[in-house]
Parts: sequence; structure tokens; C-alpha cells
Amino acid sequence: MPDPTRSPTWTALEAERKAWNALHLRDLFRRDTRRFDRFHLLLDAEGDALLLDYSKNLIRPQTLKLLLRLVREAHVEAFRDAMFAGEAINLTEGRAVLHTALRNRSDRPVVVEGRDVMPEVRAVLARMRVFTDRVRTGKWKGHTRKPITDVVNLGIGGSDLGPAMACQALRPYGGNIRVHFVSNVDPSHLHDTLEDLNPATTLFVVASKTFTTQETLLNAQAARAWLLHSTRDEKAIAKHFVAVSTNAEAVRAFGIDPVNMFGFWDWVGGRYSLWSAIGLPIALYVGMDAFEELLAGAFDMDEHFRHAPLDANMPVILAVLGLWYNNFWDAQAWAVLPYEQHLARFPAYLQQLDMESNGKGVMRDGKPVQVSSGPIVFGEPGTNGQHAFYQLIHQGTKLIPCDFLAGRESHNDIIGEHGGMHAVLLANFLAQTEALMRGKTAKEVETELAATGMPEREVQALIPHKVFPGNRPTNSLIYRRLTPRTLGRLIALYEHKVFVQGALWGVNSYDQWGVELGKQLARIILPELTGQTKTGTHDASTTGLIGHLRGG
Amino acid sequence: MPDPTRSPTWTALEAERKAWNALHLRDLFRRDTRRFDRFHLLLDAEGDALLLDYSKNLIRPQTLKLLLRLVREAHVEAFRDAMFAGEAINLTEGRAVLHTALRNRSDRPVVVEGRDVMPEVRAVLARMRVFTDRVRTGKWKGHTRKPITDVVNLGIGGSDLGPAMACQALRPYGGNIRVHFVSNVDPSHLHDTLEDLNPATTLFVVASKTFTTQETLLNAQAARAWLLHSTRDEKAIAKHFVAVSTNAEAVRAFGIDPVNMFGFWDWVGGRYSLWSAIGLPIALYVGMDAFEELLAGAFDMDEHFRHAPLDANMPVILAVLGLWYNNFWDAQAWAVLPYEQHLARFPAYLQQLDMESNGKGVMRDGKPVQVSSGPIVFGEPGTNGQHAFYQLIHQGTKLIPCDFLAGRESHNDIIGEHGGMHAVLLANFLAQTEALMRGKTAKEVETELAATGMPEREVQALIPHKVFPGNRPTNSLIYRRLTPRTLGRLIALYEHKVFVQGALWGVNSYDQWGVELGKQLARIILPELTGQTKTGTHDASTTGLIGHLRGG
Repeated sequence: MPDPTRSPTWTALEAERKAWNALHLRDLFRRDTRRFDRFHLLLDAEGDALLLDYSKNLIRPQTLKLLLRLVREAHVEAFRDAMFAGEAINLTEGRAVLHTALRNRSDRPVVVEGRDVMPEVRAVLARMRVFTDRVRTGKWKGHTRKPITDVVNLGIGGSDLGPAMACQALRPYGGNIRVHFVSNVDPSHLHDTLEDLNPATTLFVVASKTFTTQETLLNAQAARAWLLHSTRDEKAIAKHFVAVSTNAEAVRAFGIDPVNMFGFWDWVGGRYSLWSAIGLPIALYVGMDAFEELLAGAFDMDEHFRHAPLDANMPVILAVLGLWYNNFWDAQAWAVLPYEQHLARFPAYLQQLDMESNGKGVMRDGKPVQVSSGPIVFGEPGTNGQHAFYQLIHQGTKLIPCDFLAGRESHNDIIGEHGGMHAVLLANFLAQTEALMRGKTAKEVETELAATGMPEREVQALIPHKVFPGNRPTNSLIYRRLTPRTLGRLIALYEHKVFVQGALWGVNSYDQWGVELGKQLARIILPELTGQTKTGTHDASTTGLIGHLRGG
Repeated sequence: MPDPTRSPTWTALEAERKAWNALHLRDLFRRDTRRFDRFHLLLDAEGDALLLDYSKNLIRPQTLKLLLRLVREAHVEAFRDAMFAGEAINLTEGRAVLHTALRNRSDRPVVVEGRDVMPEVRAVLARMRVFTDRVRTGKWKGHTRKPITDVVNLGIGGSDLGPAMACQALRPYGGNIRVHFVSNVDPSHLHDTLEDLNPATTLFVVASKTFTTQETLLNAQAARAWLLHSTRDEKAIAKHFVAVSTNAEAVRAFGIDPVNMFGFWDWVGGRYSLWSAIGLPIALYVGMDAFEELLAGAFDMDEHFRHAPLDANMPVILAVLGLWYNNFWDAQAWAVLPYEQHLARFPAYLQQLDMESNGKGVMRDGKPVQVSSGPIVFGEPGTNGQHAFYQLIHQGTKLIPCDFLAGRESHNDIIGEHGGMHAVLLANFLAQTEALMRGKTAKEVETELAATGMPEREVQALIPHKVFPGNRPTNSLIYRRLTPRTLGRLIALYEHKVFVQGALWGVNSYDQWGVELGKQLARIILPELTGQTKTGTHDASTTGLIGHLRGG
């Protein structure tokens, strides 16, 4: 792979970065009243508008031009088309990357190795509809003929974060069935969840592609024991367990009727799988119509990503801005700040999506990446974060680019004496992006403090502590309302952003070899820890810790 | 303040960092079989042992010696003693910093401005005991003479994260009363929480020092309206609302009986306040005995921090290691990885504690900090994180030092066919620290792949993707079991770590001016957004967003 840092464009961007040492966004906004017009995008202006305002970024027209030149030079468009066309772009695993087929709402075929996968995709969706309808209407009965009240998803990573995040996000669309998520092998996770549940009305969804994921299988076995402890009849398993997997044999051996196994395909990566049958808990919670709306939202974004010109392409714009800070401003992190309590787990979802995809040290051809690749992703909902970690974003020494997300409307506004709470939420979001951009000068602080009658000496001592440098970049994403369709668009937007960045860095965003070594070593350590085998050869630290944990 | 980077010690550390370019932990462990003995600490070995293993860090004895020299040169010990002695070390606000007085379990007085504060501290604890006992035993009755079943804490930032984190952590000690936390001004947060509650059996704790925090007051007003909607009697307020505040007038005006107001003091910072009456929801949940155990745990750590020599002082060791990576290895972030589902919110708690304390750009004397200050804190429980973002930690381009936390015992182990799940959890924790430290060489990968019979060409192509560089630093903190006492120790450990780092960087860890500007601007924007005032002078972005949100 060509080293992007050797291109003249990269060099020009380094110069552009230096030029920015003398620029401040405050001044650029003052000088250019059209800056907002220039640097915002609107998807679907007539309907369910999604607005991306990226004008509060450390860019000017020439910056963006250079960044988009990088995209062209890396042939990202051709690579994008290869992904949509089903080519095996996940080359270390020899697989296509086709989560977009799962939400292809057109009648276009998607061909993988000579075969259109769409009929299979539609068949699974149809089976999901029949099944979720039965459970939601009470036609599916438990072992004692009672309808299901609670669904527990047993899955981890991609089989957990997506469905868990989406169910929380779509709470206003939830039906009568409660959904719970158990991922951790820490037994407290399952213990606490089952404490309030009734085996007679609980349905477990075991989500593991291979049906061998250690955490998920241990939780599934423990859940089965819990069920059997109350029913004492193995036949109950088929009424209280379904599987999302491709390993029919293991599923059957567990006691699940393979009729109740929902499959997916090796071209669906774990962290891109909520669009597949892995989304079953979402569909059980909000119903299949809403689940298909979620798919439709993602399809909106797929179409936009495929067809919008680069300079009007939301995923592309977000991607190059992220690269700009990551590679030219030494920004290691990226904060996701949803002003929407229901998106509380969206940052954790994006954390996996991004860090597992682009947290790579080698390029697709095996050469080391020459630049810093994927960012560290974190975030909490606003306004909570304002009272926690925003201090560092405003006045700390590290530059943290932030994405703010907010909806024009709330599902649950509460109107009090002073108006609606949702407006207060939005005012806070706007004020934060304004504050981060413009900051507060020593002069402004001085005027303000002097007006309070504070003695001059105290004023002078306090000024530097109350100065805000500003010039801190933010994106603002505004949707109408957090509907299933909106959520689908947001997720797909970030999926494609990650795709573009991966293409720019030249990494394979679709493998995850970095999770293997720990698993391998854990298999060796487990019997040593439980005393089944003698402690083998480890470093002194690991040996010491094993000894301590064994009570030595 | 002296610029630490100009000291010879700093220069020597820069040289030490360069020396590390030729070192790998794998080799150091091989060469030094006593490395674990050398680099671990044990608190309270006889009782409830807390082990800190820091041997898997990028240090050798001379590294640590230099780092501890920095501590001495910055007079951190004298500064620590000044904090414990009640001096006004929060100099921009002219206040003492005395959260340690709240958990002073000795009979030593703590004097602030000539007055021993301990009698007041004990008096509030005694009132908390009476009150929580009454609620927990059902003697406190609601307006319709029913006992309380649910407590809703209304607070944000320090009035939320600490109690919420602690209640989750201490779930095995929880009584019959359910506790809920509403922080966000997003109305969905309160709406969702109240949906399942009964006003007749719900008690609200309004936690706001000044009783003016916007989010908290709006939530409190909405909660009051919800209560009155069902009772239609203002007298009900006194039975269903209590306050943690110092503003008696505002509390009374709200309708709360000042007898049910629990106070604290201006020497308790928000993010250090869970030890005060802000911890009321914790005490309501686990009872006052367990709450005092939490205090006792923090006191254990206070005593250790005050008396242990620097090279055997846990907070000091953690602090200098963090500084080492932050300032010499360009590590901007720090990951907190509890192998304990009940500590799921511990990273979010530490995120506030650390980022709000040390996310500062100026030193105590107002001069700019010359080095990078506080880190970006993030984390999720293991093993969940292994299936999400660990990929980047193992193979990404950014160095992320990690703290692993785990307990020797679980409260809820589940024993299956293959043994206990808790052992699997621990094996995973150990394996991760081992993998991060030693990595996997190209040679090892090659041997492994060749053994599978893979064609040589494929092996060679795959090797670089499966190599783990290793040499990635971790701390391991092992406690016996997550008791209230253990939790108190862990929190205080990190509080003091943050203190030491703040002292080393020369910042004031106890103010948070960076939260002010956003609040100020939000007050201006709110009436513009709701159309009460015309849109004023903003940058084009903020104006454009206001227009879009107003539906323009």
C-alpha cells in the first residue's frame, strides 16, 4: 500500500496545519458570515431531515479541499463500490463485507460468489416477523402455556452492544415485552438479571454465530439450569430458548429446536450485525415494522454514501475531519455526546464499531501503518457530561474533537412553569458548541470580574483560571426525532465514516485478530487457577497473581 | 510555580524514555525473576488484602526512582499534609479540601479556620442514620401512610455519579428499597423512571448544594408536579421529598421540611462528595452500617496515603505511572477495566473525578502548564470490553495504559459442569494482562500457522496481522471481594492518585471553572430558542442551528 504521508497532499496538509497556528474559529466566523451555509449538509430536507453542521471545525475551504483530495488519491470511492458489490474486501479472512445487503430495501440483487444473497436475507426477515409476531401477541407459549413477558439476550460484543443500544434508544416504541441483556461472564450479570424474572414467562435468545463464544455459552448453560431447576423437564428448553447462530448441530445439542434458529452469514461482521437476526431482541421489543424502519434508515444512508459527491457526503466529511484531528492535531480521542438520554449507550456502541475496526497497526498488505490509526472513542449523554468531564474538553491540554447529537423533538417533553425541559436540553447543547468554539478571552473575564466589584489584585489572579481558549472543534448532528429510521441513519452514518477512515489509513477494518491472543492464554490459565493443572510457565507477575488469587 | 520540565529529573526521565526504545517487558521479566516481588504492594495483608501489581509497567528500578524524585521535588508530601490539615489548598475558590474529614474514623480533630469540623460531620452522620433507619424499617410513611418502596435521587455530576456508581457496586448489600437516579435535563430520563413508580411509595432526594442546579431543580419541579397530580395536597411534599443542600430558604420554599434537609460544607467538592450527605441514597439502599464501612475503607486508604513511604504508597505509585505515560509516552488516555459487572459505572465515576480535577490548562499561579495535564478516562467492564475495544489496545497505534480490577471472590458465583464462572472471569483478566505485556512475535505466529497446514504464502501474508507487539502496560488491583470497605478503599485510592498528579502538574485539582461558560451561554440561548426573545448575536453556526431547531 502506498504510504499516504509521502503524498504531496499530506505535505500540503502539514503546511495547512501550521497555518492554523495563527487562526481562530472566532475570527473565521466573524469574517465569513456564510460559513454555516458553506459547511453544513442536509439529508432529506423535505422529510425527516438530518442536519450535519460541521462549520465549527478547524477547517477553511482549502483544508477541506486537501482532505477530500486524500480521499480521491486513496481511491475510496472504488473501494466503497467494491464493498457494496460484494467483493472480498475483508482480505485477511477472505470475506465480503455486506451488512449493507441486510438493509437493501431495493430490488437490486447483491451477488456474492455468483449468488444473489437477497432471497436468503428476505427469508430470514420473514421468519423473524412470524416469530416476533407470535411472541409479541402471546401466541408463542412457554412450557406451562403462559405467554412470554421477558426476553433475555445472551450475547457479547457485537451480539450485545447493538441490540442493547437500539432497545434503549427505541424505548418509546417498545411494546409490552421487557428485554434484558446479559453479556459478561461475571456471574453477577446473569444472577442480577434473573433475580426478578419468572422462568415460566422468560425467553432466552442465545446469540453466538459459532455457538462457541465462551461467555455466551456459559451464560446459556446457567440460564438453562435455572429454567430446568423450576420446570424439571428438558422439553421446556425448546419453548424458552431460541438461537441466533449458524451452528445447527451445537444448537440442537443444547436442546433448542433448529426451527427456532435464525441464521446469518460469514459476510456479516459481529460489530455490523444488528441488521441481521442478531437484531432479534430489537424486533421482539419494538416489533418487526419498526425493525424494518431501522433498516430503511440505514438504507437511506447507504444510498447517500454511494451517490452523494464527496464534498456533500456525510460519512466522508466526518471521516476526513476525524483524520485531520487524529493525524495533524495529535488528537487521540473522539468524544460522542448525545443530548438524548435514550442514546446513553450509543458511545459504547461506537466505541466497539470504531476501535475494533480501525484499532490496527498494519495495513492491508501487512506493512506497518505509518500514521496513527483509529481513535479512542468515549462519551456520555449531555447534559450529564457537562457536569463530569467537559472541564477537560474546555480547558484541558488535550484536543478532543466532539460530535454532538440532538433531536428537534422529544418523545417525552415535560412542560413546567418555565417552559419545556427539552428546550433547556437543546439550549445546553448549543451553548456548549458555541463555548467550545469561541471560548472566553482574558479581556472578557476581566470585564466580567471587575463588574462584580472584586479587588483588582484578585481579578488578576483569577483571570487565567477563567479563560477559555476556544477553537475546540465540534460537529452537530440534528435529527427530527429519535425514530427507528433516524437511528438506522445514525448508525449507518458512523459505519461508513469508519469505512472511509479505514480506507484512508489502509487498514483492514473488518478483521479483529487482536482479540485472539487473550482467549488463547485464558484457556491455559483457567485450569491453573482452579488447580486442575499445575501453574505453568508465565512471567513472575502472572504467576504471582495466580498464586494470590488461589489464596497462596 | 516552577516548570517541572526544566528540572534535571525531567531531563533524566526523557533519557530513560529513550532507553526504553530498546527494552521489552518480556525480556525484563525473563531477566529478573524478582520483578513481581519488587513491583507489587499489599495493603492489609492479614485482613481484607488489597494487592496492587504494577510490575507489568514500562519501568525498571531507576525509572521509578526518578519518578519518585519528581514527587519529592514537587513537595507533594507537604502539600498532602496541608490538605489533611484543612489549609485552603483550593486557592482559586479560597477553600479547604476536606473530603477526608468526612471519613475520619479517628478521634483526631480536623480544624478549618480555627474550628473543629468533626462534631458537625458526626452530627450529620447521626441524622442520616436516624432518617435512613426510619425509611428502611417502614417507620417513615408517605402521605397516605404507606411505607417507602422506591427512592429517586435527583442530582447531577457529583450528586449523581458517586451514589449511582456505589449503589450498583454494592447491590449484594442492598435492602428492600429500590433506588433510581435521574440526572439529565432530558425529560425522558425522569419520564422513564417515573413510569413504573407509585407516588404513594416514592421518596425523592433532591441533591444540590445551592439548590439552584438547573437540571436538578427542573427535575424536582416535574417530580413534585407528578406527586401533586396524584395527591392534590401540597402537604404531601414534605413526606415525599428530602433535600441534600445548604440552601435552607430555597429548600423550604420548595415545600421540603428543613428538618429533612441534610447539609454539607464548602470544603466538600462535588466530585468528592459521596462521603457526605450526598451519599444518602447509598445509605438508604445498603443501610447506615454499610455506609460507614464505606467510609472506613476510605479512611484505610487515607491512613496509607499519609503514612506509607513514597515507594510503597499506592496512590503515589499509580500517580507517577500515569504521569510517566502521559508525559513521556504521549499516552493521552487511561483505561479503567473492572472485571466486576457491579463496577460498570466505576469508569464513568473516575472519568469525572480525574478529568474534572486535572483537566486544567493553567497552574495554580495562573501560568500555562508546560506539559500535558490530566488524561482522558474511559472504560467498560471486562470481559465485555474484550469483545469491543481491546483490539485497539492490543494492536492499535496508540498506547493506552490500563488498570485492571478484580476480586478474588464473587458474591454470586455460578458453578456449572466446567466449574465456576468467576474463575473464567479471572482467567480472562490474567490472560489479558499477560497478552498485553508479552505480545506474540512473528516467529510464534508463523509456527502456529504452519502447524495448521496453511500454505506458506498465506502464512506469510497473515503473519503481520496476527503479531501482537506487546510491551503494553497494565496495573492489576486485586481485592478480596467487593465489600463496602473495599469500595471505599478503591475510590479513595484514585482520589489520592488524582491529588498527587495534580500536585505534580501544579494545577488546582479542586476548581472547575471550565463548566461556567456553557451555563452562561445557555441562559442566553434558551429564550431565543423558545421564541421569548429575538435571536441575538451569535456566530453563523449557532444562529443557523437555532433557526433549524425552531423549525425555520
